[in-house]
Amino acid sequence: MDIVTILGATGSVGRSAADILLRHRARFAVGSVVGGRDAAALARLAKTLGARFAALADETGGPDLKAELSGSRIACGAGEGAVLEAVERDADIVLSAISGAAGLKPTHAALKPGRKIALANKETLVCAGHAFMGEARRVGAAILAVDSEHNALHQALAAGSIDDVVALILTASGGPFRTWSSERMRAATPAEASAHPTYAMGAKINIDSATLMNKGLELIEAHHLFGLPASRLQVVVHPQSIVHGLVQWRDGSVTAGLGVPDMRIPIAHCLGAGGRLDTPVPRLDLGTIGSLTFEPPDELRFPCLALARAALQEGGAAPTVLNAANEIAVEAFMAGRIGFLDIARIVEETCALAVSRDGRPPSGVDEALAVDREARQLARERLAGAAFAAP
Amino acid sequence: MDIVTILGATGSVGRSAADILLRHRARFAVGSVVGGRDAAALARLAKTLGARFAALADETGGPDLKAELSGSRIACGAGEGAVLEAVERDADIVLSAISGAAGLKPTHAALKPGRKIALANKETLVCAGHAFMGEARRVGAAILAVDSEHNALHQALAAGSIDDVVALILTASGGPFRTWSSERMRAATPAEASAHPTYAMGAKINIDSATLMNKGLELIEAHHLFGLPASRLQVVVHPQSIVHGLVQWRDGSVTAGLGVPDMRIPIAHCLGAGGRLDTPVPRLDLGTIGSLTFEPPDELRFPCLALARAALQEGGAAPTVLNAANEIAVEAFMAGRIGFLDIARIVEETCALAVSRDGRPPSGVDEALAVDREARQLARERLAGAAFAAP
Repeated sequence: MDIVTILGATGSVGRSAADILLRHRARFAVGSVVGGRDAAALARLAKTLGARFAALADETGGPDLKAELSGSRIACGAGEGAVLEAVERDADIVLSAISGAAGLKPTHAALKPGRKIALANKETLVCAGHAFMGEARRVGAAILAVDSEHNALHQALAAGSIDDVVALILTASGGPFRTWSSERMRAATPAEASAHPTYAMGAKINIDSATLMNKGLELIEAHHLFGLPASRLQVVVHPQSIVHGLVQWRDGSVTAGLGVPDMRIPIAHCLGAGGRLDTPVPRLDLGTIGSLTFEPPDELRFPCLALARAALQEGGAAPTVLNAANEIAVEAFMAGRIGFLDIARIVEETCALAVSRDGRPPSGVDEALAVDREARQLARERLAGAAFAAP
Repeated sequence: MDIVTILGATGSVGRSAADILLRHRARFAVGSVVGGRDAAALARLAKTLGARFAALADETGGPDLKAELSGSRIACGAGEGAVLEAVERDADIVLSAISGAAGLKPTHAALKPGRKIALANKETLVCAGHAFMGEARRVGAAILAVDSEHNALHQALAAGSIDDVVALILTASGGPFRTWSSERMRAATPAEASAHPTYAMGAKINIDSATLMNKGLELIEAHHLFGLPASRLQVVVHPQSIVHGLVQWRDGSVTAGLGVPDMRIPIAHCLGAGGRLDTPVPRLDLGTIGSLTFEPPDELRFPCLALARAALQEGGAAPTVLNAANEIAVEAFMAGRIGFLDIARIVEETCALAVSRDGRPPSGVDEALAVDREARQLARERLAGAAFAAP
């Protein structure tokens, strides 16, 4: 029986994982569940899953959580210490699904010998990928990707050795503005940018899908997960989101991972860890779907993809800076302070200002978080100092 | 250095293999090359490849072959004995690419401990699959499929255990009559039926693609290669022939094998046997291809697919009978003696007459060949005894 700990249990990935775990009670026990602010939701989930420990990141929610769990045998706590306690407790598989930079420390702390880390927190690889993967190798923890694209690549890579890979290809839905002109995008509203065509996700990631920054961040993740340089990592736009990732082999063979767009599939794949778990997800039926379309990404209309690729090529702390600047810019766009096209502009200007760093990647989480803070400050200064055209 | 023997060296698969071997001279030596009737072509190929032994199936071509090879250090022979000698000689990998029932005996004889058999001869599995796979397991020979569909499935299956497979899906181009009505097919000429949309192949296999019998025979092959029942083997029509095969996993994941339609890819994959060989095949570029389409096969318009599935479900000698009847019917169609739709009719009637057999699969090649002869005779009698509408 594998013990599973869920960081980010009340988010969309966490809830999908809970759905899978509840269908396989005989195979899994739940160790810790960690949530952000919603004490009631976390307590409910902890009870449903029969977790041993529940931790809320927001310290002020501690009393509520305690009250909700009174009478149960589930221990609990709140604040950073409680989150780290949740991570330290016994677990075979840790699902890291806290969103944003808040996920960095707990995910890094989760690395223990023999553990499997099912990684859904992008920032772990984007901001501190070098340090994280190095530490995972050192302690002997296995890293599995929950993102449907990287999970598909994991599966497609089983057909051979990474040395025989010519290129890894990630698909992108293209977002809601796939067919829009730059002129039209200039006036796009946050509501328009949030309409993701195939997945139901949070607002930040939806905006990142609209700018294609999401795919750029995924290229950086793929680099760390699979160890290939930017020149062998590609993106193809595929609006139906059925094919998630493809591997080009030296002999001309291509293997691919596909599936209906449902996060329970890659989550089940990670939890199964070798064996496969039944899921209630409908079977992919290509005969009914009829047509899968593909087109090259347009990096002129979607400069964020080119910026991410440039950051990956530059290396060092550039991806950390890119990610921080993007978070600030997206926040400003969602707040109506800047226009959609200004997101790329803020990111580009912040990256240009930050290049004076010495080219080493952050050596650990603390350094990554310091770079992150500094880049956010730079981005905020850009926001304050220039004129923008909010829609 | 692996020693490779090629059965059917002068055919299209054999020549594609030669192309790959010539590009990897440091990795492979060529043992025997076996051809059918063309002594000059076989001698040329044997010299180019530096083979150790050349055998012509047609005994009367022996003197020509000897003359062509005089002065070289390549031993040779002609007739059935020479073909078997070619098979017996030292080899690590035997590519079985003789077409038709003639490939049965040499392919069966090629099974030796530790050898890899790269199988392109359909009849080996369709007519005597039970006996062949049993013998391969007994002696410890590995069977790799050269057919692009089965080769793709081999690659896609690497992502897990066969026990977790819900279904294997083979794609079919749909053939030249994919969009034709039955009425129009009734008057189809051999020339029209021979126009395969994506692969350049022999006439017989092109007709089989037009009737979808080819895909039916491939379902039977897949059953023997992967050990799944008919109920978990499916076909989807995919006119672009880019996706060759898909694996549906228990958790909803799907893995697939893709590639531009070029037989050198699956041949290189089989020869590489774990490692991957460079090939000159153009890279698959989905962004340029643009669209992949899929549709369910129409077993009413293409009854041969349903007949093959029924034979697989019936088991015993039914697939052997189906295959023999189909060969006779296709011959008659190509000779202008029967109409296109009569092919399925002859096959169906022959299968119905042959069902009185006792339900055991042929226990070996000799019994399979006896069933084959008997079924051909039955099919010829159907041809002689009924009225047909040749176009």
